[in-house]
Amino acid sequence: MHTLIVHAHPEPRSFNRALTDAAAAALRDDGHGVEIADLYAEGFDPVERAEHYPQRADPACFAPLGEQKHASTDGALPADVRRQIDRLERTDLLILQFPMWWHGAPAMLKGWFDRVFVNGGLYTGRMRYDAGYFRGKRAVVSLTTGAPARAFGPLARAGDLQAMLYPVQYTLYYMGFDVLAPHAVHGVQGHGYSYQDADAFQRHLRQAATGWAARVRRLGTETPLTFPGWADWDEHGQPVAAGGFNGPPRGAA
Amino acid sequence: MHTLIVHAHPEPRSFNRALTDAAAAALRDDGHGVEIADLYAEGFDPVERAEHYPQRADPACFAPLGEQKHASTDGALPADVRRQIDRLERTDLLILQFPMWWHGAPAMLKGWFDRVFVNGGLYTGRMRYDAGYFRGKRAVVSLTTGAPARAFGPLARAGDLQAMLYPVQYTLYYMGFDVLAPHAVHGVQGHGYSYQDADAFQRHLRQAATGWAARVRRLGTETPLTFPGWADWDEHGQPVAAGGFNGPPRGAA
Repeated sequence: MHTLIVHAHPEPRSFNRALTDAAAAALRDDGHGVEIADLYAEGFDPVERAEHYPQRADPACFAPLGEQKHASTDGALPADVRRQIDRLERTDLLILQFPMWWHGAPAMLKGWFDRVFVNGGLYTGRMRYDAGYFRGKRAVVSLTTGAPARAFGPLARAGDLQAMLYPVQYTLYYMGFDVLAPHAVHGVQGHGYSYQDADAFQRHLRQAATGWAARVRRLGTETPLTFPGWADWDEHGQPVAAGGFNGPPRGAA
Repeated sequence: MHTLIVHAHPEPRSFNRALTDAAAAALRDDGHGVEIADLYAEGFDPVERAEHYPQRADPACFAPLGEQKHASTDGALPADVRRQIDRLERTDLLILQFPMWWHGAPAMLKGWFDRVFVNGGLYTGRMRYDAGYFRGKRAVVSLTTGAPARAFGPLARAGDLQAMLYPVQYTLYYMGFDVLAPHAVHGVQGHGYSYQDADAFQRHLRQAATGWAARVRRLGTETPLTFPGWADWDEHGQPVAAGGFNGPPRGAA
């Protein structure tokens, strides 16, 4: 089981990096191949913009989806995007590791979606959802939050974690992945910022890394979340039957 | 009523830019001041990273929240962040204009949150939500989607729009804004990409711009969405009473 960890935290000594390293070590221990896409360390540019497309389909007006499709067809995708896609092609399991910033992924990871999941090449009107390009591969979101677990909930102070993760989870499903339940470590603050001392940080980190490593070893056999698919929609995309899916946010099904 | 439009689309001839221009023209017609923060045109860097903080609280380990707080306290925020905050200080109404990319805001706008809504200066453990820094100001999200309106819904193909907007809406509320109902224009494709001809694009654009301009004139008097606040939570942040709020995603209240 080859794994790609897309890692989006700016600090090599961060809690998030320790989780990525723990996952990679556990998988390698089990004999699996692991690749880490450290977006900050690689200097990935998360901003989709005209400058990435020197040979434009429409030089007068930049339409991102049109240029993505044109570049996919012409084999003219930006080299950094091509590199990310090549990594996705050879992986069986995708792990997204990031700190929750403002109720979602950091811009660095959001822009990885914006630029790498290219129209035309990796999805079309029909090649989406359970007919998506990456079907057969698994994906899981692993995140840290600053707020403690007990502060979360649909009407609680820290807010509805399921709704916060909906955009990234539905994007992974859109691309065809079997999406596993997210893995959240709560109450994580920056090293040297809010912990009483370095020992408290290290204790929390060791506990979290051990838990994540144990779960990572089971990811290949876990039952994925369920989402509605093509057989569940009419021609306009509306549901033809009642729910029973556990992928969308609570209360929606 | 001074208005700041934070605009996040890379193409000056885009549908989104036409909506921004229509809103600005309507407000100016009514005698209001309008400022446009065109993030792409300004070359805003949406990536929160160590390089933005030359005078670090902790030179050995970059903790974004810690450095934001330190820089806020020391008057050492990055100049581009300070500029965005100054704009927010002098506005009464904030409009976020963007195309929905991958079920959320483009990285350019997501990173505007990551960098501009600084810890310490603009929020603290207690200065949040209905005690947030920007209380008394209004905010509204205006977005375009590629999928048509009839494809949206909690179990429908294009997905649950309310859940997709939860991260940005809850972020605005976190900062203290009175959050208005979002404004979505559906079925928008890039110019010259999927429309049958330029006339079809222009017809859709004129209709959408007229509708948005009409609503913009009413934003100052609209009733905001309701979210739970400090009086609704116990000391752990859990709700002390049942819902009745219309801000969180459907089904959550």
